Amino acid sequence: MKVVKFGGSSLANATQFKKVANIILSDKDRKVVVVSAPGKRHEQDVKMTDLLINLTSCVLKEDGVEEALSVVLDRYEEIITGLDFSQEGLIEDIKDSLLTLINAYKDDEERLMDALKASGEDNNAKLMAAYLNGRGEKAHYVSPKEAGLFVTAQPGNARILQESYEKIAELKNRDGVLVVPGFFGYSHQGDIVTFPRGGSDITGAILAAGIGAEEYENFTDVDSIYSVNPNLVSNPREITELTYREMRELAYAGFSVFHDEALEPVFKKKVPVVVKNTNRPEAPGTRIVAERQPAEQPVVGIASDKGFCSINLTKYLMNREIGFGRHLLEILEDEHISYEHTPSGIDTMSIIIREHQLVNGKEERVIERIRKELEVDDVNIERNLALVMVVGEGMAQAVGVASKATAAFAETGVNIKMINQGSSEVSMMFGVEGKHVDLAVQSLYSIYFN
Amino acid sequence: MKVVKFGGSSLANATQFKKVANIILSDKDRKVVVVSAPGKRHEQDVKMTDLLINLTSCVLKEDGVEEALSVVLDRYEEIITGLDFSQEGLIEDIKDSLLTLINAYKDDEERLMDALKASGEDNNAKLMAAYLNGRGEKAHYVSPKEAGLFVTAQPGNARILQESYEKIAELKNRDGVLVVPGFFGYSHQGDIVTFPRGGSDITGAILAAGIGAEEYENFTDVDSIYSVNPNLVSNPREITELTYREMRELAYAGFSVFHDEALEPVFKKKVPVVVKNTNRPEAPGTRIVAERQPAEQPVVGIASDKGFCSINLTKYLMNREIGFGRHLLEILEDEHISYEHTPSGIDTMSIIIREHQLVNGKEERVIERIRKELEVDDVNIERNLALVMVVGEGMAQAVGVASKATAAFAETGVNIKMINQGSSEVSMMFGVEGKHVDLAVQSLYSIYFN
Repeated sequence: MKVVKFGGSSLANATQFKKVANIILSDKDRKVVVVSAPGKRHEQDVKMTDLLINLTSCVLKEDGVEEALSVVLDRYEEIITGLDFSQEGLIEDIKDSLLTLINAYKDDEERLMDALKASGEDNNAKLMAAYLNGRGEKAHYVSPKEAGLFVTAQPGNARILQESYEKIAELKNRDGVLVVPGFFGYSHQGDIVTFPRGGSDITGAILAAGIGAEEYENFTDVDSIYSVNPNLVSNPREITELTYREMRELAYAGFSVFHDEALEPVFKKKVPVVVKNTNRPEAPGTRIVAERQPAEQPVVGIASDKGFCSINLTKYLMNREIGFGRHLLEILEDEHISYEHTPSGIDTMSIIIREHQLVNGKEERVIERIRKELEVDDVNIERNLALVMVVGEGMAQAVGVASKATAAFAETGVNIKMINQGSSEVSMMFGVEGKHVDLAVQSLYSIYFN
Repeated sequence: MKVVKFGGSSLANATQFKKVANIILSDKDRKVVVVSAPGKRHEQDVKMTDLLINLTSCVLKEDGVEEALSVVLDRYEEIITGLDFSQEGLIEDIKDSLLTLINAYKDDEERLMDALKASGEDNNAKLMAAYLNGRGEKAHYVSPKEAGLFVTAQPGNARILQESYEKIAELKNRDGVLVVPGFFGYSHQGDIVTFPRGGSDITGAILAAGIGAEEYENFTDVDSIYSVNPNLVSNPREITELTYREMRELAYAGFSVFHDEALEPVFKKKVPVVVKNTNRPEAPGTRIVAERQPAEQPVVGIASDKGFCSINLTKYLMNREIGFGRHLLEILEDEHISYEHTPSGIDTMSIIIREHQLVNGKEERVIERIRKELEVDDVNIERNLALVMVVGEGMAQAVGVASKATAAFAETGVNIKMINQGSSEVSMMFGVEGKHVDLAVQSLYSIYFN
């Protein structure tokens, strides 16, 4: 039994709908289908979700509602027409459901936003179920409420309630293909609440974990996860198998096939995740698993991310001062600044943080407090840093991995500002100047993969 | 004007006394002389300080005092005889002074210990002053009280009081050579209080800072500080010039020419420290300075230290948890455990600490608290780690330093368990298994210096 999730680009128009239906029908194990809202049909296109956000604001300012609504309905109309199958009153049903939501929530901005946004997935699921039926397949639209997806109530930040899993498990006993809209659940008060980033991926992961699926297939528009950003290296190696923790490290440093935190439920249940391409379903894709056989090549991927800075402290005899590090982290915590790493020397300590956090005078306050409270000899900020991650299971055991990496840097003349290795067994981190990061990634790729 | 300090081995017997006198008389700038107690004359010998500690315990258990006392006096007697100069009643004075201390403090164990230990330096200073006079040099014994060395009162843990420096500065105006005993000062209550580790070095550093000496000469029994432990590499390169911070990093990892914290007073006043050999005063020695010209070789020394362990934590989504690191350090602080480094991955964090701290059930308590309070997925301890430091000014700028190091490790097949670089501009740290550390140091030395 598999849970299959399709992203917005896989459901952007009738052509994509047909592909998706073919994929579903080609494998009887594809029992639970999770759909996103229709995505972009081309570069300049507008996603359904954005059309619905626009509709929401029109409702709130009580202006242009009619037009905004018809734009939404036209998108569905286009899909239905393209699918050339007939079912009475589909568009009317969609229209009625939207008007019902508008009336129900028009005085509650946040609830209205959540409800209308969620309708993008919801109506797409109804459409897909209807289309599958039209093709003679026994398929049912299953609302998140019916499926048992109960969540916390904060609008736009739903978290699944553990009790949900018991109810979700019952889906196994239902027959036919079950089409569930992604992106939202219901609060105990009966309100629609959307998930944070990675919405539909979260729904899919929860359902896969709930029914104990043999696989969670995540269909998107790439053949696989690549060992390096394809914008930096042409035809980079495809990753056939990846462990959860490798995925985490890569995702952290900018790999964005999908939002990795969405996968937590399947990580816990050790359900394999398979990333596949709706437009090339025959491609093997990338399997994300709990454990994999160590390959003779210890490095599986190289990722990088910009926008970091380093707060550097110096204080004579710092390392004899019990409580120094704790006090420093407390100052950051007070300012709600999360840090990435804290490399330290004997009388020195650095804090690597994401630069965007140093706004609204936080920089000045933090520096001032460090001076005053920690009585440092010196404190300064180094900006525009980038982090490069070299990731792979078994790197910790392999001799010479670091040597290759540092050699690559030396050859390209990139100065390594920071090395952080040892805590994670599956990654090695390098800090370089932002302007050198692409060169660094390219040279690392060629030394490990060419 | 220079402050010159002589260690115990430089004053172990008459022959050494003569060498020291020659060194003092050969340079008119050697104004203030700081002496230690007589050290070992040969491998199996007992230091004067240990004879005095023994005398103390005899006094406390009121047994064998006579004998213990005579052993002490014999050492001085031997030196005086060997110096073949005559001054009436020197030994008697020493004996009287010791008996006076015994009577004054016999009911206060700690004070007695401090006073008798300090007498080793004190009487040696009197002896040296007398000897210099005997050789026709105008020299004065100056007691720490007279010099203005006022300290905090905790026995064995004296800290200099800032007010002292004003008084000390006046020493500049006195004529003749001033011989000051190292290792102790006086509390405001008039008690003798000894300094912690590095005692006589501390006295010398305080005096050098106080009179604003042009140099603080520290005479010991080696020609210079070496770029690597001579027990690991034969005829290692001598270091001619070293910055304070390079010294700090090297001293941290086992370089023990003298206790580096003793130098804090001169660091602050930027007084150069010169390490020289009493037995080969013509050797240039090693200058420790605030700043130095960058050499074309960025690495100046390689040091290592054993006895570390790593507490490794894993927790999914750890890096999104504000306050995690602070809470972890708080637990260590509660247990009075000081940590060295905290390398971190995305969902992992390690704490490097000195192993000897994990006694009296601390290990179990810490692990238990980490499990309970931080709700980690996994926590384990990795033992028998060693740290290797590659040290040198300007390393931060030099491209390829890390590459050489990691290549050296790869060649020798030593697996790098941890790399910590980036906070300190003058060092790079590697963690390896204790059993590999010597090999690691040797290979690093040969790649940088051969």
